[in-house]
Amino acid sequence: MAHTLLLDAASESGSGALKCRTAFAFAGIKLEEGKLGANASATTRGLELITPGANSSKIGQSSAILRYVAKLSPYSNLYGPGDRFTKAQVDQWLDFVWAELDVPSAALTIAPEGDIKKSIQGDIAKSLSIVDAHLVEHTYLACDFITVADISLACSILAAGPVSSSTPNLSRWFTTIANHPKIAPLFGGSSSGAGATSASGGTPLVDLGLQLSGVPPPVAPTLYKRGRIRIKELLSTPSLIGSTVTVSGWSRTTRNADAGKLLFVELNDGSTSLSIQCVMKNTSTGFDNCKASGGTGASFTFTGELVESEGKGQSCEIQVIKGECVGPVYGGENMAIGGANYPLSKKSHGLEHLRQHAHLRPRAKVHAAAMRIRHAMAFATHKFFNDNGFLYIHTPIVTCADCEGAGEQFGITTMLGTDPHKTDVKVPYVEEPKKKEGAEKEGGNEKGGEEGGGQSNKAKKKAAKKAAALAKKAAMEAAKGGKPADDPLPVGAVDYSKDFFGKRANLTVSGQLNVETHCCALSDVYTFGPTFRAENSHTSRHLAEFWMIEPEIAFADLHTDMDLAEDYIKYCVKYALECCKEDLEFFEESQFGEKGLIKRLNNVIESPFKRLTYTEGIELLKKTVADGHQFEESKIEWGMDLGSEHERYLCETIFKKPVILTDYPKDIKAFYMKLNPDEKTVAAADILVPKIGELVGGSQREHRHDVLLERCKQSGLEPKAIWWYLELRKFGTMPHAGFGLGFERLILFITGLENIRDVIPFPRTPGVAEF
Amino acid sequence: MAHTLLLDAASESGSGALKCRTAFAFAGIKLEEGKLGANASATTRGLELITPGANSSKIGQSSAILRYVAKLSPYSNLYGPGDRFTKAQVDQWLDFVWAELDVPSAALTIAPEGDIKKSIQGDIAKSLSIVDAHLVEHTYLACDFITVADISLACSILAAGPVSSSTPNLSRWFTTIANHPKIAPLFGGSSSGAGATSASGGTPLVDLGLQLSGVPPPVAPTLYKRGRIRIKELLSTPSLIGSTVTVSGWSRTTRNADAGKLLFVELNDGSTSLSIQCVMKNTSTGFDNCKASGGTGASFTFTGELVESEGKGQSCEIQVIKGECVGPVYGGENMAIGGANYPLSKKSHGLEHLRQHAHLRPRAKVHAAAMRIRHAMAFATHKFFNDNGFLYIHTPIVTCADCEGAGEQFGITTMLGTDPHKTDVKVPYVEEPKKKEGAEKEGGNEKGGEEGGGQSNKAKKKAAKKAAALAKKAAMEAAKGGKPADDPLPVGAVDYSKDFFGKRANLTVSGQLNVETHCCALSDVYTFGPTFRAENSHTSRHLAEFWMIEPEIAFADLHTDMDLAEDYIKYCVKYALECCKEDLEFFEESQFGEKGLIKRLNNVIESPFKRLTYTEGIELLKKTVADGHQFEESKIEWGMDLGSEHERYLCETIFKKPVILTDYPKDIKAFYMKLNPDEKTVAAADILVPKIGELVGGSQREHRHDVLLERCKQSGLEPKAIWWYLELRKFGTMPHAGFGLGFERLILFITGLENIRDVIPFPRTPGVAEF
Repeated sequence: MAHTLLLDAASESGSGALKCRTAFAFAGIKLEEGKLGANASATTRGLELITPGANSSKIGQSSAILRYVAKLSPYSNLYGPGDRFTKAQVDQWLDFVWAELDVPSAALTIAPEGDIKKSIQGDIAKSLSIVDAHLVEHTYLACDFITVADISLACSILAAGPVSSSTPNLSRWFTTIANHPKIAPLFGGSSSGAGATSASGGTPLVDLGLQLSGVPPPVAPTLYKRGRIRIKELLSTPSLIGSTVTVSGWSRTTRNADAGKLLFVELNDGSTSLSIQCVMKNTSTGFDNCKASGGTGASFTFTGELVESEGKGQSCEIQVIKGECVGPVYGGENMAIGGANYPLSKKSHGLEHLRQHAHLRPRAKVHAAAMRIRHAMAFATHKFFNDNGFLYIHTPIVTCADCEGAGEQFGITTMLGTDPHKTDVKVPYVEEPKKKEGAEKEGGNEKGGEEGGGQSNKAKKKAAKKAAALAKKAAMEAAKGGKPADDPLPVGAVDYSKDFFGKRANLTVSGQLNVETHCCALSDVYTFGPTFRAENSHTSRHLAEFWMIEPEIAFADLHTDMDLAEDYIKYCVKYALECCKEDLEFFEESQFGEKGLIKRLNNVIESPFKRLTYTEGIELLKKTVADGHQFEESKIEWGMDLGSEHERYLCETIFKKPVILTDYPKDIKAFYMKLNPDEKTVAAADILVPKIGELVGGSQREHRHDVLLERCKQSGLEPKAIWWYLELRKFGTMPHAGFGLGFERLILFITGLENIRDVIPFPRTPGVAEF
Repeated sequence: MAHTLLLDAASESGSGALKCRTAFAFAGIKLEEGKLGANASATTRGLELITPGANSSKIGQSSAILRYVAKLSPYSNLYGPGDRFTKAQVDQWLDFVWAELDVPSAALTIAPEGDIKKSIQGDIAKSLSIVDAHLVEHTYLACDFITVADISLACSILAAGPVSSSTPNLSRWFTTIANHPKIAPLFGGSSSGAGATSASGGTPLVDLGLQLSGVPPPVAPTLYKRGRIRIKELLSTPSLIGSTVTVSGWSRTTRNADAGKLLFVELNDGSTSLSIQCVMKNTSTGFDNCKASGGTGASFTFTGELVESEGKGQSCEIQVIKGECVGPVYGGENMAIGGANYPLSKKSHGLEHLRQHAHLRPRAKVHAAAMRIRHAMAFATHKFFNDNGFLYIHTPIVTCADCEGAGEQFGITTMLGTDPHKTDVKVPYVEEPKKKEGAEKEGGNEKGGEEGGGQSNKAKKKAAKKAAALAKKAAMEAAKGGKPADDPLPVGAVDYSKDFFGKRANLTVSGQLNVETHCCALSDVYTFGPTFRAENSHTSRHLAEFWMIEPEIAFADLHTDMDLAEDYIKYCVKYALECCKEDLEFFEESQFGEKGLIKRLNNVIESPFKRLTYTEGIELLKKTVADGHQFEESKIEWGMDLGSEHERYLCETIFKKPVILTDYPKDIKAFYMKLNPDEKTVAAADILVPKIGELVGGSQREHRHDVLLERCKQSGLEPKAIWWYLELRKFGTMPHAGFGLGFERLILFITGLENIRDVIPFPRTPGVAEF
């Protein structure tokens, strides 16, 4: 559904309607029109805009509609380049036009002949001369772009009649506006760009291509401009038709026709999933060069006229005046032009084939769409937390702390040499490595002693206890079908005191323990960074390297935490529905996507998540089994760790929406979760969503020092290994809570893709770290 | 300098001035007033707002000023909760008030008695009845918050005279507005909250505390609310004075007075560097509990009345009604309350002391301010690139590629066991590690063959060549004073085919090569993630783990790249000056900061960066030496790598602003930089900034396959190790460019801090990976 402008008989030909039509055309947004019925609002002056979509809203007053359009299409610069000062200028001029021109003009129509009428006419003339004076030194009213203020004034002037010769600057300005290729058709000009009041006869005064494609950042003056228009902007600005544009990108297909006299190139630049057809005749500059491109995958730059397309399936195409094949596709070692060896030829490829060509995969529609959504979700995440007053904390990747006490960790070392390509290379064995110079006192190397936290002594004391815990852990891993830790090097083969960090260091499995330190001072914080698990998982839900978002809130309990998580997920879904519409539609239709995707997403934001306890969940699952449903694991009992099948059954079949399961048995959750008064469960909350199962794992943290210490010991963890974490509970502790969300799972949830390897640029799994 | 409202004699008592005053007070932003002189603009109706700062701007028209204030203070919700639909409603109502009330009211004052006057009065009455009807079902005009539309209407009504009894809903609404504690004083009410037209007599109708502190995210309805007001909002909203608020945080100091009958707690919650003084009497609830807190570092929650402070140095304080010491400070192992062992006691601490207590460091003013600025710069980065149409690509952390061919890399392995605390633990040596199950075909393990890219065979072929290159590299490193690679394990001790990734894997030194793959399909991309260098550097400018921003732009040359980098840096500086004013002022004054910081930053955005070639730079440095200046390295010759002293001399002494140095000798730059036609230099551009030296390193990339291959070989790199990178040049290559910016150096540049370890939450340097 498009935006619809409802008008009554009086407003249809008025300047208000013209303003709206012009602004929509300028922004390249489709506008339908309809009749205003009897239920018209008294506040809208016979002119109402109905916005499309689930969030449909009614906006009256032409200036309010102009402001709305300007915000809807930031690329159009209709509110200026983005800074609030220019926006204020736009606002000021909008109000000026309204108060000093539109209102008196309306008054004129009802004023009696005589002094009053004359007085009003004098006021209008004075206002126009004020504008004229302003335009002596300004190209447009508010800044160097045409804004809605210019559109408003131009429409008011057009409605009021010819511009007086006593306002030469205003006349110059009006001619420029009226000749603008996007405005001229509405002002009575032909589509070739000749404006009704143009003095220059037939040639548009402004070439839009570059201005539109160079989206100015909010700091003026800016330097960065693209030498091309992005295809996304091109296709969303139908009023560009008739103008000359430059595009660059890669061909999806090339096709010869008319006995070699025509060349069709379907070009994409990654800004959108759609491509633009570029048609080249053998009379165009660069025809032979472009013809010898090797086909699909070659890169081109085309300059030509944007015209309405006669072909089916596309609204417009470029009639190329000048083309260049910037980079052909070469085949084979001899570098001859030809697509024979190009791995992403025109035919459709399976996802596994794409994974094996990860360096070219972004050229596949499915991966490009996933990456655009991934970007949008990353930005939505930062915007959500920033707007809510959270600080982004970069927790460390290299760490000596083991957060969960569960995840297998990767070791980091410089003891194996530092060259990546050394596998089979015989280099001389360095017998006496140079001692590190100037090594610092911090950290727990042998001489660190108490000053560095006493880690060395602590480590020794815990050895016996730890060995037992390790053996137990390995046995548990083995029982779960995981791979026991490979440990092919005899202990002592590596003397960590000589390693880079002076001790054994690992890749982080979670930033939570680290970010809690900043929560205990800055109150509301979050992490968003890569985390690592050396688990030998070959499922479609696990990666060895993945990104995680972990907010942490101070002076808050589990309920506030759940509220935050639910808000955040809904925000992301809403953002995707608003900003990634085209890509979601692609996934809705794609063989790799999901039918009903958009409906599923809308369902997520439309109602509150279902909240129930783990105990209640177990009862429901028991009943399900009693009623005859078979799970792979149908022995449901309190204390069990729910499988993905159980989680998905709860949210997909029973509740048909996201479910927050709370208060899990303490024995299946981490030591840092707050013990409930029943002393059997902890204040944990996992969010289970259809299609994925667990998306979020959260908890209120145990903030009582004595309870945490006891839980730590019970879990087989050595308290001294996390002395600094425990110290947070000794110095100004407070209730706090947080959660972790696996970013790739969020992207699976949003795109409907099935395999986590398809939503990250370069997946890392056992045996896979190519590229 | 504050915002200043300039008024002429007529406007001073008009509704426009009242609207501005009310909106500023509501938003908690200081507004000064002045006389409008003879140079008043004709477009502003006797009312001009002068904005503060370097970007000083003039805004006329009261509605434009209201919109400006609303945008200036998003926390105030003066433009509604943030969605564009509500904003459009606000805009619509602002215009309605202007056109249907203000303009006719003004007309009334000049209209002759008789029909015209009556007709205008009738119009106004009709407009008010329209509003009355709207308010039957709405609390406020546009949404559930007081917006500038409500302020505008209320001020217009106040100016127009008493509200008629025939509009009961409007009367109810007006009473609510006029009684609002932030509005009442301006509407003639007392500061205790009794509004002039209040029916309820003396008690504010709305308690602001919770509404203000719970900043609503843009998706409604939202669930997440803080149970407290953030101190940042509290201190920036002086009109909250007189209301009851709840705050939580940590004490900076506690002090007893009046023979133990009074307790003063200076409380901070990390939202701002400022704290709020909370005053407790022995009659307040929780007095004894709060008194036994252990002092500095304890956490509290206080509820009380915000009052103007009599003490010096603070504008307001909280007279506590109810207090709770949530978490005391404990001393020693016996957990007795007392601050004796708290590492961040009241006295000032050195930066090294803070680094050694990184888990408590966020409570120190200097670190908290650095973290707030770090957050702001991260958000500004994402906003800049998102707004410019770039996609954020998460390049991998674990990689088999060596980007620069220079950085020492950390190895990643599971072959040393997977437990972090194993250093001294004797665990049984596992003789026959289990083979990995289901290892995939991808990746170059022995059986990968040609299908996986043929890395195994390739690796063997390159062995001889690589060994020579390695030896050369090690010698070079040693000559530079770096540490030769520790290599204490005999080659063959680790069989990488049994390692997690089936081959030697490393931590990334740069995402550039990876992100180029996505640039060659999505056109405009950037990375922002952690990178690693295993260099034995102990300087104040190097970390083993640091974050880097790396944009990459397609169909672009070095000039476009420089434009982008200059825009981006200026955007960040501008963002900091606008959004981190308070923290920058802290660093300006801090013993650890920099006098003249704000002036230096303003200087950066005020003029174009100086651009010159490396060759010109060398000439200038030669001249400097000839003129008698002594560098540590005074032998300046073409081909040398510039030292930090040379870089800083160029930008600090010669040009006194950021300098972009271009076209470096190819031998001191990476193989992937585009060879210039002179075949001696490459299209590289480094940005040197005062205080830091090199902040950005950028280049146009060599996109010609044959030239890149040759440069790769010349640099001693084995082409087959980066086969996929070279393939990008075989399939649709195109000119492209990019740069890398070290995020921590940006934070040093913005804060004026000297040591890079103070601008990252948990620094990683040789020997340091505690926490």
